[in-house]
Amino acid sequence: MRIDSITADDFKKAVSKNALVILPIGATEAHGAHLPLGTDTFQPEHIAREISERMDNVLIAPALPYGNHSSMKNVPGTISVTFDSLRSVVHDILDSLIWHGVTRILVISGHCGTSHMAAVTEACRAIVMEHDVRIMLISDYEVMRTYDPFCYDGDGHGGLAETSRMLDICPDIVNNERPRGRFVDASGMVLRDASQCMPDGVEGDTADASAVLGEEMNNYITDTVIRMIERDLK
Amino acid sequence: MRIDSITADDFKKAVSKNALVILPIGATEAHGAHLPLGTDTFQPEHIAREISERMDNVLIAPALPYGNHSSMKNVPGTISVTFDSLRSVVHDILDSLIWHGVTRILVISGHCGTSHMAAVTEACRAIVMEHDVRIMLISDYEVMRTYDPFCYDGDGHGGLAETSRMLDICPDIVNNERPRGRFVDASGMVLRDASQCMPDGVEGDTADASAVLGEEMNNYITDTVIRMIERDLK
Amino acid sequence: MRIDSITADDFKKAVSKNALVILPIGATEAHGAHLPLGTDTFQPEHIAREISERMDNVLIAPALPYGNHSSMKNVPGTISVTFDSLRSVVHDILDSLIWHGVTRILVISGHCGTSHMAAVTEACRAIVMEHDVRIMLISDYEVMRTYDPFCYDGDGHGGLAETSRMLDICPDIVNNERPRGRFVDASGMVLRDASQCMPDGVEGDTADASAVLGEEMNNYITDTVIRMIERDLK
Amino acid sequence: MRIDSITADDFKKAVSKNALVILPIGATEAHGAHLPLGTDTFQPEHIAREISERMDNVLIAPALPYGNHSSMKNVPGTISVTFDSLRSVVHDILDSLIWHGVTRILVISGHCGTSHMAAVTEACRAIVMEHDVRIMLISDYEVMRTYDPFCYDGDGHGGLAETSRMLDICPDIVNNERPRGRFVDASGMVLRDASQCMPDGVEGDTADASAVLGEEMNNYITDTVIRMIERDLK
Amino acid sequence: MRIDSITADDFKKAVSKNALVILPIGATEAHGAHLPLGTDTFQPEHIAREISERMDNVLIAPALPYGNHSSMKNVPGTISVTFDSLRSVVHDILDSLIWHGVTRILVISGHCGTSHMAAVTEACRAIVMEHDVRIMLISDYEVMRTYDPFCYDGDGHGGLAETSRMLDICPDIVNNERPRGRFVDASGMVLRDASQCMPDGVEGDTADASAVLGEEMNNYITDTVIRMIERDLK
Amino acid sequence: MRIDSITADDFKKAVSKNALVILPIGATEAHGAHLPLGTDTFQPEHIAREISERMDNVLIAPALPYGNHSSMKNVPGTISVTFDSLRSVVHDILDSLIWHGVTRILVISGHCGTSHMAAVTEACRAIVMEHDVRIMLISDYEVMRTYDPFCYDGDGHGGLAETSRMLDICPDIVNNERPRGRFVDASGMVLRDASQCMPDGVEGDTADASAVLGEEMNNYITDTVIRMIERDLK
Repeated sequence: MRIDSITADDFKKAVSKNALVILPIGATEAHGAHLPLGTDTFQPEHIAREISERMDNVLIAPALPYGNHSSMKNVPGTISVTFDSLRSVVHDILDSLIWHGVTRILVISGHCGTSHMAAVTEACRAIVMEHDVRIMLISDYEVMRTYDPFCYDGDGHGGLAETSRMLDICPDIVNNERPRGRFVDASGMVLRDASQCMPDGVEGDTADASAVLGEEMNNYITDTVIRMIERDLK
Repeated sequence: MRIDSITADDFKKAVSKNALVILPIGATEAHGAHLPLGTDTFQPEHIAREISERMDNVLIAPALPYGNHSSMKNVPGTISVTFDSLRSVVHDILDSLIWHGVTRILVISGHCGTSHMAAVTEACRAIVMEHDVRIMLISDYEVMRTYDPFCYDGDGHGGLAETSRMLDICPDIVNNERPRGRFVDASGMVLRDASQCMPDGVEGDTADASAVLGEEMNNYITDTVIRMIERDLK
Repeated sequence: MRIDSITADDFKKAVSKNALVILPIGATEAHGAHLPLGTDTFQPEHIAREISERMDNVLIAPALPYGNHSSMKNVPGTISVTFDSLRSVVHDILDSLIWHGVTRILVISGHCGTSHMAAVTEACRAIVMEHDVRIMLISDYEVMRTYDPFCYDGDGHGGLAETSRMLDICPDIVNNERPRGRFVDASGMVLRDASQCMPDGVEGDTADASAVLGEEMNNYITDTVIRMIERDLK
Repeated sequence: MRIDSITADDFKKAVSKNALVILPIGATEAHGAHLPLGTDTFQPEHIAREISERMDNVLIAPALPYGNHSSMKNVPGTISVTFDSLRSVVHDILDSLIWHGVTRILVISGHCGTSHMAAVTEACRAIVMEHDVRIMLISDYEVMRTYDPFCYDGDGHGGLAETSRMLDICPDIVNNERPRGRFVDASGMVLRDASQCMPDGVEGDTADASAVLGEEMNNYITDTVIRMIERDLK
Repeated sequence: MRIDSITADDFKKAVSKNALVILPIGATEAHGAHLPLGTDTFQPEHIAREISERMDNVLIAPALPYGNHSSMKNVPGTISVTFDSLRSVVHDILDSLIWHGVTRILVISGHCGTSHMAAVTEACRAIVMEHDVRIMLISDYEVMRTYDPFCYDGDGHGGLAETSRMLDICPDIVNNERPRGRFVDASGMVLRDASQCMPDGVEGDTADASAVLGEEMNNYITDTVIRMIERDLK
Repeated sequence: MRIDSITADDFKKAVSKNALVILPIGATEAHGAHLPLGTDTFQPEHIAREISERMDNVLIAPALPYGNHSSMKNVPGTISVTFDSLRSVVHDILDSLIWHGVTRILVISGHCGTSHMAAVTEACRAIVMEHDVRIMLISDYEVMRTYDPFCYDGDGHGGLAETSRMLDICPDIVNNERPRGRFVDASGMVLRDASQCMPDGVEGDTADASAVLGEEMNNYITDTVIRMIERDLK
């Protein structure tokens, strides 16, 4: 159930039965010539939906569609909020959920930049220090990288895996370009414009991307996360 | 065009032609026994969509689905972020848009609480002090109240007008309850739990709500806002 | 009793008998060619004094003479503190009063700008969440607008009502100009310099202002606020 | 001229002639059994008034009647705002004055606690880093201690000097008690309740306090500050 | 040259010749039964010293001996400062160096926790946005992990590599215990006490630690960092 | 025992026996043509070491080598962190020590600037309000000024006393210059560059500085502080 589509009473009932709340953290970020700016929102929303269909009593909170960006910050279309804003708003959302009695929360972030994840982590950590609740924080992007059959060496942002997953989730807004690019290491330099690390806007070769591969990956991620929930968040 | 569904290049092209960006500010807030928690997100998103269909070169940013709440804060399902978090995140979104060259922005907020609007206003004000851009900030809820044919006396949160508008926008998630309630004035008292001001969860009588009335209202709001854009934000 | 004119022991004694503390929030703001910059300080101080003369055991805290301004910010003489500064300092004053045992506080603000009131409201709200005390927050300007016999349509900042009230309170510092001006709506635009909304510096026609009318209004406000105190803050 | 008693135009005219603005920083603080809580407000206000009578084109801003307190914090009647609130609000007042063209400011603080003065100093320092203006910051209490004829050894808070000065300034609110007390050194300990350092609420012996001595002191302070202004702030 | 051991003039001279400044970020953190709490300070200080001996015109700033910790936070002896404090203090140190004309800075952090590094990164990033300077940020711990001859699989905090390096740097404060421990994955759970992830206080088997291996590693790190400096920070 | 040189277990053991923790607050500040930039770090570290040698169960935390500076801020080599950064980082260090069970802390600051001390004081004060612990805060520089045999009139920053103390502590990094300078009073002016108050970089005449005098002073300080500890911090 999507929280935005149910009433106050429905919410209250679900929480009284100890609902698991999933909070998708999305992003609005340049993803190459072929993928839409909402790629990092659509992916965790899809995983959240899949989980809610396979498990009982799951509530999906509205996805926060803005994250914190560094490497893509200067590329048109990336809308970045600061570390502090992201940390605060995630903190407050969790705090408000807990105020209403929620005790089990899965935060799932589509974007996986270091500072972005640190901001979300700091928010979650403050919450578990303040309240006796259980919070699991994952990035579906990170989980995807543990998928064995596929070799991710050199594949990353907007690459084969992300393109395939998006072809499974919302093929209508993936266009026909299939770019290829590489990550250029800056060896520790703190850059004013980190977009030079990804001159082609993507990392990897998207030529072989397919909805079939994407579906496998999305299923793998969903299965993995459900196992994690069943072990630690039940 | 929804920003989340286009690529970096599409975004760049639209902005280079001086696109108007609409940023809907939504909310997740209890809206009585009949309306979904996302009511204040769906309404400004609808108006944004209508405007984008009638005007050229409009980009719709992803709606921020969380606002700042006081009277409904304690009612199950209301997810409130603090004044400061809301102000910061709105500031950063606007700042990021401007960084990419956007110079005309319409911020449209579904929720219209005093503190909520003050937070969004403060964010917008800081931006216009820092940058030479034009920002219009309105609440579709406020615009609705200028609709003459209908008498809003005693109608408010989750009332006849909001119910009708939602029946026009997304009837599938409006249920069959038609509550009736009133606002109880607290005469200046700063309340720990302001929900006592709206004991029935709604203000007004929703018995006569209809999609027809809602459509009229939504059209009126859209027309009015387009006139405002044409006068001041062109 | 003015807190600044009594000793620590007098204060202690009054608080031990459950004194009502009135905190006037003033402002230093341009008020047209005829009214002094302290207009919004003198008015709530006057109401506080009147209340303290008609009720037992009232303590008047020193008026904070600085508020937050937007429309008048750029007009010479307006001294504006930021939203955050105002919120913090009001919070701390209330917190300190409560630390000494005060449990009933009336905050009365002369200035009534939206952001200004939101800042004071946020401060009061934080306090009632932290402490089990009663706080009433009103603006004497708002109460004045409920005074029926007089038609306020088009009368506002520095207008007929404020001029009359000041002629009653401190005629010596009201000069002989009697300006007339109107409010120009900006239709949602967030302005860098909002003073353009009040090109004449006042809203209304002050030609008929008189101390007699002012006294009636001040009495009406005092009576109304006393009734509110007796109902909710006793 | 008091800023709160003049109009926007008067203010503008004075500033265009390069007026010196005096900002008195007051306090609401326990001052023994005999002195009123506003003692640290009335003293700098008096000095400001005296200066304005002897010098041309001086504007007196409304006194901020709240400061930051540590030793007296827990004594009834002391209303303390935090270091940060004090710093912010003083910063904003100065910033707003400068915005209107003021370039010469004398900040004069009645209270002279270390943290209080550090907060005001930090505010002033930030301003002179941001703007090309001249700010002088003094405490009339500190200047008083350079008055030779009188031996201040062991005289301090609420003591002989302050009592005499208040008898000169506002004898009506000084009562007949003439307490005697001493400062108890805590040798570096950071105390939760520092009021134990001044168990009698005053430091010194007030038995010989007189309006005559107070007038001498007030004159001495006024003369000294005028000399400082003429040397550095002209 | 250590900045703390030279005079203002020496500093000025070195900076005028475009000195490279190395800022070691240390930590005070539990490092098992055998390593001292300053392990993460001594290591980057050693690397800084080695670099300064092999390159011209290097200034070593005093090591900041406190970092931000999560997994070891609750283990006795770990002194953790918050994310925000660390970010601020590093920002200010860099800002002050740049104020004096420094344009090339190497920040080298001994501790390598995710949040810790994010805080330092955010500080550096803010600086490069504000100033036209070059900043390289590395962790000697991370560089160490690229050392091929040695297999780091399962070796980490307080393990074989760190123990060996410390035996090379300051054998006198490494005691004779040679613990063995493993990292226990928490699978995404945000933990109130993350020390349960390292129940033995170390990750790896320290049995074969030796000064010889440590020297090799320290040399490797020094060589690698010098190469990075010569490529990007010259 | 230096905390950075002992293990987690050693720390735990010492704290379980109610160890006194000394936190030296150092600085990196220009100290004339003859003294090193770390002068204000080396002095309190020396006193801490002396105390730990004469008293049982003393732990010395790593010295924080950065403070807040105003008068020397613009002189090459002074590395200043802001008031807020210093306050935060000191707060967090103390908070972390207390978290591990420490209840007796001596904070000893080498630098003694007004704002610097106010920042450290504010940090300590917040801690004693939050926790039931004892904190003593002193500056060895201030204690030195109570040493009778020597006349400090006109001696101050980098003067005879500091030079002598440094000749006792670390003669190798004191060079042969023996400058002489004076403090120039700015009479209340808040200066953009306060270094003009000490045009020669030192205050006093260092011609007669000697290690013998320095040792006497260091012994006097150590003895005095030990007496203070024995009286109030035992």
